[in-house]
Amino acid sequence: MNTLYKETDIINIINNEILSYLKKYAGKEMYEPMEYSIKAGGKRFRPMIMLLLCEAFSNNYEDCIPFAVAIECIHTYSLIHDDLPSMDNDELRRGLPTCHIKFDEATAILAGDGLLNIAFEIMLDKIPNDFNKKYLLATKYISDASGTKGMIKGQALDIKYENTSINKEMLLDIYENKTGKLILASMLAGAIIGGANDEQLKLVKNIAYNIGIAFQIKDDILDIEGDEKKIGKPIKSDIKNHKSTYVSIYGLEKAKDDYLLFSSTALKGLEDLGFKEKSIYKYIKKLIYRDN
Amino acid sequence: MNTLYKETDIINIINNEILSYLKKYAGKEMYEPMEYSIKAGGKRFRPMIMLLLCEAFSNNYEDCIPFAVAIECIHTYSLIHDDLPSMDNDELRRGLPTCHIKFDEATAILAGDGLLNIAFEIMLDKIPNDFNKKYLLATKYISDASGTKGMIKGQALDIKYENTSINKEMLLDIYENKTGKLILASMLAGAIIGGANDEQLKLVKNIAYNIGIAFQIKDDILDIEGDEKKIGKPIKSDIKNHKSTYVSIYGLEKAKDDYLLFSSTALKGLEDLGFKEKSIYKYIKKLIYRDN
Repeated sequence: MNTLYKETDIINIINNEILSYLKKYAGKEMYEPMEYSIKAGGKRFRPMIMLLLCEAFSNNYEDCIPFAVAIECIHTYSLIHDDLPSMDNDELRRGLPTCHIKFDEATAILAGDGLLNIAFEIMLDKIPNDFNKKYLLATKYISDASGTKGMIKGQALDIKYENTSINKEMLLDIYENKTGKLILASMLAGAIIGGANDEQLKLVKNIAYNIGIAFQIKDDILDIEGDEKKIGKPIKSDIKNHKSTYVSIYGLEKAKDDYLLFSSTALKGLEDLGFKEKSIYKYIKKLIYRDN
Repeated sequence: MNTLYKETDIINIINNEILSYLKKYAGKEMYEPMEYSIKAGGKRFRPMIMLLLCEAFSNNYEDCIPFAVAIECIHTYSLIHDDLPSMDNDELRRGLPTCHIKFDEATAILAGDGLLNIAFEIMLDKIPNDFNKKYLLATKYISDASGTKGMIKGQALDIKYENTSINKEMLLDIYENKTGKLILASMLAGAIIGGANDEQLKLVKNIAYNIGIAFQIKDDILDIEGDEKKIGKPIKSDIKNHKSTYVSIYGLEKAKDDYLLFSSTALKGLEDLGFKEKSIYKYIKKLIYRDN
């Protein structure tokens, strides 16, 4: 039987686990800025989809926890570095001063470096001595996604194309890498630890692709018509920064239509996996109507 | 029989391997700044001691190569980030413009991030599916050393204590972490892949500690009386930056005496391992008299 979750319960579990791993793994010099940035965190979207997908496959998510913590550390590190003055130069994130504003630039760079390193330390410790291939594979999914053929590539393209008018292919290339690859890795890690077979992993890949693009289009829509208080940062920043977005290329109406198309394709994929009654389905469905 | 090496041959092998791994693992957007910083590299000290120590134990260093490449990627990433304006603000490294001068700050941050990530990608790919514990252990040695209880801690302390007068314990704490831990990891990885047992690993730890401190004292001495052309950066930068060093705390003469003491303790350790006729011994001995 499926154990239906309360979203806030799972978020609490994730938050507690992240802090307890951080206490164990972080050197004391860097603890405070790393904890600050982790605590400022939002929806815990990546750990959520990893845990819930693992649970959908195996009725259990415990084995996923180190990888869920690791992916949130990597996500947080990427935000800290992206916010730096030489990158996106953002002073506010989720309603709070960004790491380099709260502390200083050097500290923010090291806190980001530290979180990436800790993510690997945590995952490596889960690859047990009597070796279970699925943990190594999960670690590889995540390390491939966070590197220069994944998230870092996305950020490099994003900076390269700032103030440039780009076409649809270039935009999707940024989206797929900057946020899509880490979402893909979250779902693949959850699935493989949950025991998914190769056929199921293929379906998961397709679902993750659609969720990743949908997620990014939603961000573009919220940047136009979101509530500043709810999203925790000024809206219309993309226009201010002359950034091409799905909305600037296609207009708001088509962006909304396509958002629903990508989202419903993802839901259909979860249905094909037999997960319509599972928490992951309900969570993704709820996310579609998020306003932050 | 020991295969005596030519130092330049091994450096060429290391350089070729690093570039060939980089070509395979780097996304094209970040390839150029990462290659630039890698090519600007110097003595390849960390890969050298790893390969030579592995060879001393096993008459073979081939299995070490991915880890030697990884450690040089991590070392290079740390230099790129340390050179940034908000950190040490260095414009010249080994006689060439630093990464953020040659490119820009955002690119330098991402190139550093990318090299750290690639290091893990390379090591994870060497942990084979049929699992050999020694590769996982080597990966863990390195990830522990590069994190917030190792190299990042050292850099955090270094920045924290800049413009402060510090005592001997604080200085050794910086040295042990900022450079010592990565040197330790290089030697432990080489030793474990070479088949060292627990008793031998203990000796290696002690040797690495002494080499690490000696290495750092030598840098402090060269900053006072080195040849700018040979070391590739302005001398007396520590004085300019009001940085406490072994020389500023103890004076030049005692620094030189202690340098020889740490160095000879390391050599004695290698002798105790039975490596007096091995390349690693000759390499370390030669390094003691380095002038760059």
